[in-house]
Amino acid sequence: MSKRIAGPEIERLIQLLAKVPGLGPRSARRAALHLIKKKEQLFVPLTAAMGEAVEKVRVCSTCGNVDTSDPCTICTDPRREDSTLIVVEDVADLWALERAAAMNVRYHVLGGTLSPLDGIGPDDLNLKALTARVASGSVSEVILAVNATVEGQTTAHYITDQLSSFDVKVTRLAHGVPVGGELDYLDEGTLTAALKSRTAF
Amino acid sequence: MSKRIAGPEIERLIQLLAKVPGLGPRSARRAALHLIKKKEQLFVPLTAAMGEAVEKVRVCSTCGNVDTSDPCTICTDPRREDSTLIVVEDVADLWALERAAAMNVRYHVLGGTLSPLDGIGPDDLNLKALTARVASGSVSEVILAVNATVEGQTTAHYITDQLSSFDVKVTRLAHGVPVGGELDYLDEGTLTAALKSRTAF
Repeated sequence: MSKRIAGPEIERLIQLLAKVPGLGPRSARRAALHLIKKKEQLFVPLTAAMGEAVEKVRVCSTCGNVDTSDPCTICTDPRREDSTLIVVEDVADLWALERAAAMNVRYHVLGGTLSPLDGIGPDDLNLKALTARVASGSVSEVILAVNATVEGQTTAHYITDQLSSFDVKVTRLAHGVPVGGELDYLDEGTLTAALKSRTAF
Repeated sequence: MSKRIAGPEIERLIQLLAKVPGLGPRSARRAALHLIKKKEQLFVPLTAAMGEAVEKVRVCSTCGNVDTSDPCTICTDPRREDSTLIVVEDVADLWALERAAAMNVRYHVLGGTLSPLDGIGPDDLNLKALTARVASGSVSEVILAVNATVEGQTTAHYITDQLSSFDVKVTRLAHGVPVGGELDYLDEGTLTAALKSRTAF
């Protein structure tokens, strides 16, 4: 907006809302106006919830997850199996796997992938804590749920190397056709992998 | 999420973020994670900006606009013409017209439209203040920039009636082909209006 049409507090609110993923400059204006209109129902509680979260949020010193307690909710959950550890790049991946709810196990968040070009080496990732958790002896399987990218696979190889001296099974996610996917739209790499790993019908 | 995977503060933050227009349950999770990761750059300043806005925001007693001061920034701007008043349904419409920056005038926000079916009558809208502003004598033209809906047009007729005793010109926005629009995709009502109001080339 070239001319000032509202107080600096509202303009600043719109500017910052526009930086939230999913919102742009136009939807940030719409969001700000909605918040102002629904002041008691949404604006006040959301502001309070943000204030509380920003105050309490921390990184779990055990697994690298973000939560409001340390150790986090997953690490302290007594109903999860200690024997299996799923290694993910990012907290978003942890949340995605939890939504699938396929396994009731524990996680380890790396906080990124090895990427020499970006100057990200082993010391920049949450790797020492992973080795320590495996060394503690209760883990029998480490599932590498890293992305199927070059950096993800490099990181997977590095971790496999690091864990080779321990008596632990290292596995990775299966490659194949996504459930509900159409072959026509899949890339050749995925189709080749799916053919190679074909299973009995 | 069926299982608790994070503290209640984070889950509540996600729930409330999902109510912001432009965000849904999935993008609210992504937004929350982004906020947590960019704590110092975005989460802390956005929380502060929201706290300040929620504290200071108020409705302008002159025109019905929302701002952090009363009278609002537009009503107190000395460089705007007092003689023209643009009547809009909603603050979002005021912002849209300001972005177009076609006129440097003042506004009057109704806060809705007449809608007997929803129980919204003249007393529920910011109409008395409009009559008072026109009666004060400095206004020579009232532009009715209400939506081209049945309710909008009903409201426009009502306002024209109310202002008929004053020496003030009442106009409305032109109907026609949107700039950049293709005739093929336009409804018949718009095309008929555009033909009727054709101008010399």
